[in-house]
Amino acid sequence: MKHPQLTPIGILHGDILSREEAPKNFSISDRVGTLEIYPQFKDGLDGITVGQTIVVLFWLHKSDRSVLKVYPRGDVSRGLSGVFNTRSPVRPNPIAISELEVLEIEGTNLKVKGLDILDGSPIIDIKKKI
Amino acid sequence: MKHPQLTPIGILHGDILSREEAPKNFSISDRVGTLEIYPQFKDGLDGITVGQTIVVLFWLHKSDRSVLKVYPRGDVSRGLSGVFNTRSPVRPNPIAISELEVLEIEGTNLKVKGLDILDGSPIIDIKKKI
Repeated sequence: MKHPQLTPIGILHGDILSREEAPKNFSISDRVGTLEIYPQFKDGLDGITVGQTIVVLFWLHKSDRSVLKVYPRGDVSRGLSGVFNTRSPVRPNPIAISELEVLEIEGTNLKVKGLDILDGSPIIDIKKKI
Repeated sequence: MKHPQLTPIGILHGDILSREEAPKNFSISDRVGTLEIYPQFKDGLDGITVGQTIVVLFWLHKSDRSVLKVYPRGDVSRGLSGVFNTRSPVRPNPIAISELEVLEIEGTNLKVKGLDILDGSPIIDIKKKI
């Protein structure tokens, strides 16, 4: 079994410092932050414009990778669920998918809205929204 | 800059053998295949049911990771675009996001519909659709 290695393309600067402060997911968040994309990936941003919604993949570097069952949304009354049937940050490969609105672009820094991700998280991909 | 390492949770068995045969994306595909999830991740599947749409992340192991500009959908007339403004499989971290319908579940094998991914691709995550 091969273990592919990720190359971070940037880092998130935001104001969410702990999981407790994070909105449950991007669809209910209006938190703003900046995607600092590393200069060597500049060409990959070509065509992205202010006002666009982009799909961003983050690596949740503080997440537990060993847990396979969780209480969805921390609600014990609903019982344990397999992590693959949740959006929990806890999972074997802790990758988060966010849909974010681009507010400003300055060089390779993208100011975005809709964050539910911890400050300092590595960015691993950006995609056009289908 | 750290390079996080992925742990594949399974492998795709499908009938798409080359990029040329692949539908352009999951939303226009009715191709069927099987997600073989490795037994050690069985508990993570708890709660997933037939008929559900799941979000699946694949590692596109045959993709070029060095290219930052592509012709979207191979259409030269539209000019080059940054990979982060496309859904091209070509990108620094070639992760694909698919929304797939679960047709059957047998142990840790999930038969799914909607594939646009090459046979043999490692599966790296499954999430509940928001």
